[in-house]
Amino acid sequence: MNAEIISVGTELLLGNILNSNAQFLAEQLAGLGIPHYFQTVVGDNPERLKQAIRVASDRANLIIFTGGLGPTPDDLTTETIADFFQTPLVEKPEIIEDIRQKFAQRGRMMTDNNRKQALIPEGAEILHNAVGSAPGMIWQPRPKLTLLTFPGVPTEMKSMWREVAVPYLKSQGWGTEIIVSRTLRFWGISESALAEKVAPFFDLKNPTVAPYANYGEVKLRVSAKANSEEAAQALITPIEQQLSQIAGIDQYGTDEDSLASVVGDLLNSRNQTLSVAESCTGGGLGQMLTRVSGSSKYFWGGVISYDNSVKENLLGVDPSAIAEQGAVSAIVAEQMAIGVRSRLNTTWGISITGVAGPGGGTDAKPVGLVYIGLANADGAKSRKYQFGDRTREWVRQVSACSALDQLRRQLLSKS
Amino acid sequence: MNAEIISVGTELLLGNILNSNAQFLAEQLAGLGIPHYFQTVVGDNPERLKQAIRVASDRANLIIFTGGLGPTPDDLTTETIADFFQTPLVEKPEIIEDIRQKFAQRGRMMTDNNRKQALIPEGAEILHNAVGSAPGMIWQPRPKLTLLTFPGVPTEMKSMWREVAVPYLKSQGWGTEIIVSRTLRFWGISESALAEKVAPFFDLKNPTVAPYANYGEVKLRVSAKANSEEAAQALITPIEQQLSQIAGIDQYGTDEDSLASVVGDLLNSRNQTLSVAESCTGGGLGQMLTRVSGSSKYFWGGVISYDNSVKENLLGVDPSAIAEQGAVSAIVAEQMAIGVRSRLNTTWGISITGVAGPGGGTDAKPVGLVYIGLANADGAKSRKYQFGDRTREWVRQVSACSALDQLRRQLLSKS
Repeated sequence: MNAEIISVGTELLLGNILNSNAQFLAEQLAGLGIPHYFQTVVGDNPERLKQAIRVASDRANLIIFTGGLGPTPDDLTTETIADFFQTPLVEKPEIIEDIRQKFAQRGRMMTDNNRKQALIPEGAEILHNAVGSAPGMIWQPRPKLTLLTFPGVPTEMKSMWREVAVPYLKSQGWGTEIIVSRTLRFWGISESALAEKVAPFFDLKNPTVAPYANYGEVKLRVSAKANSEEAAQALITPIEQQLSQIAGIDQYGTDEDSLASVVGDLLNSRNQTLSVAESCTGGGLGQMLTRVSGSSKYFWGGVISYDNSVKENLLGVDPSAIAEQGAVSAIVAEQMAIGVRSRLNTTWGISITGVAGPGGGTDAKPVGLVYIGLANADGAKSRKYQFGDRTREWVRQVSACSALDQLRRQLLSKS
Repeated sequence: MNAEIISVGTELLLGNILNSNAQFLAEQLAGLGIPHYFQTVVGDNPERLKQAIRVASDRANLIIFTGGLGPTPDDLTTETIADFFQTPLVEKPEIIEDIRQKFAQRGRMMTDNNRKQALIPEGAEILHNAVGSAPGMIWQPRPKLTLLTFPGVPTEMKSMWREVAVPYLKSQGWGTEIIVSRTLRFWGISESALAEKVAPFFDLKNPTVAPYANYGEVKLRVSAKANSEEAAQALITPIEQQLSQIAGIDQYGTDEDSLASVVGDLLNSRNQTLSVAESCTGGGLGQMLTRVSGSSKYFWGGVISYDNSVKENLLGVDPSAIAEQGAVSAIVAEQMAIGVRSRLNTTWGISITGVAGPGGGTDAKPVGLVYIGLANADGAKSRKYQFGDRTREWVRQVSACSALDQLRRQLLSKS
């Protein structure tokens, strides 16, 4: 029993839109425990759509189509499916009536184009669309093969999936096994270093453990298959505990946690507050912190000291420190952190100063060199990072995360 | 001559991530005029990846793989391709040396896992990865079939595509009929209002004109097909001029322009400078401005005044204004803009104060209410926006863009 997704639409092949429908359906299938091994994208072309149907129907029991159900001549999904399975189309009066009523509600007249949407293969059932005009269908063209079609409009597709398709699939015995996943999140360790530490776990079958990495963050995803949520959790918990123990402080959170939310929780539980002084990140660290709803409890604000005059005038950085060591230096990072902390009167001050690139690098201070300062009542410390010749976006994003991680480790070491 | 994309990664089948790589490649292939009829997504599973290769290699001359080139055991793309075409893997010492150097730059040691990334099929060439550790390959396993592999990390894939793959494909005679697109960018007009104004253009065949909208921005994409760049441009230019004339000041730029880069150019050409005072955006406006390389010429910095104490102490906002009108009010926005401008000594000061949600809204000041202030030597003005009950992310992003657009219109009206 396994499913495939066929997304129909020339706009996908032209790259005009992201295939967010496939992601939604993939997530839903995983949640229902329905195995799903292939996705295909094909344009509004009957011959090529038939090829895709041929390949998918040879290996899957459930094919989910999105797109190509609209009223225009390039919407060909239903008639192509019918043609592939050599079945005539029949007109469903209840679809015409439904479309007519929806148009009337919006004060419009149904057009002749829409009559096309009332045609479905003989023997198929209507998959009702409560939101838009295009209905889908549920059809078993032969034993052990079920087809579901959905319009490409994401809101319509999602509502039809949840309200009609999922109850139908469950009634047919699909989705009795569920998959539960838990994501463990790490910062300050490379994917390969973490993978070496936890290598034996990658051979597990249930739960499975798989690593991912992006923009300096490393994740381990633990996925268990079972008959119930509880049984899946019972499989995940001991593995998660072992992984957490091996990783230690390099693990900063799980699932929906972000470095900003974890740092926020740590500050909240200590009744402490934070301010930031940002140079190369230009506000990115503040933005990251305030993405968390409720961050006003512990984040008071900061200074974007992009120009050196702002470092001096608003943060009290010593002009001679900038003249002698340069704006990208340990001493300036430390003075920025001390300055913002004292001016905003917070428990902690974090600062970032660095060369984000692509211009501005020198032999002594190359692109990717970043100093992060951290100040509290005891004074300030700083750490030097050499991120190498990455993109400006990468250096800025990873700098902001590294600053949060530096504070996180400091908060945990003091608890 | 046609291409297919095979995206490899169980995380895609689980719906953990959006397949943005496929969209990027699709757009690029369209731009090069390389026909592309199918995309396949398959998990980290050798047998199923081989099935996908079998199907694709029967119908395409160019297969582009993304994902599965990392150092961990579930990264199987290269060895599975080699196995499918029954070709042994060989170790490339230059890859090992390159990885070793990249790790050294970051002060880290290469792990044994990474040696795996140095294996490519006999006869294949290295597709150099200037950014990350995983190289790709260019391989013709048999006549009239070219394979390109890329890591799944979008920044690495994109840089390798642009810098290595495109020149290679052109040298091999791909992309002779080209599609050139130009994107016209608008702010401050809705998609439907713009679409009504330019409706007749949507019927054009070459170039075509199509509208897109996202996060408050509206775009028109003009795409022409021709035998040369010049011929395509000659088709685009007159249409672009007509569209620009109809849209007027609502068009802020084209192609790679952003509101931040356009405002930066306007400030640069006037030798003017800018500072920002941010409350609900928390640094997002500063981040947007500094995303532009070279922004230090005109952007001096700002104050993230998340807490009211920061509005008072660092920006000089009158505490009685906050007490009487609230922090989200016209007077506070104006005082923030005046305060940051005078303290940072810039030509312009912009401020943002609003209710980003999801919490914190009241009947009088609902979620989505935002005031944007703009100060210059003549004083300050503010504008009230009611974005309605959108997500926190939406309100913050659109607020920052609206602030830039407000300054853009002001700069243009004064020129």
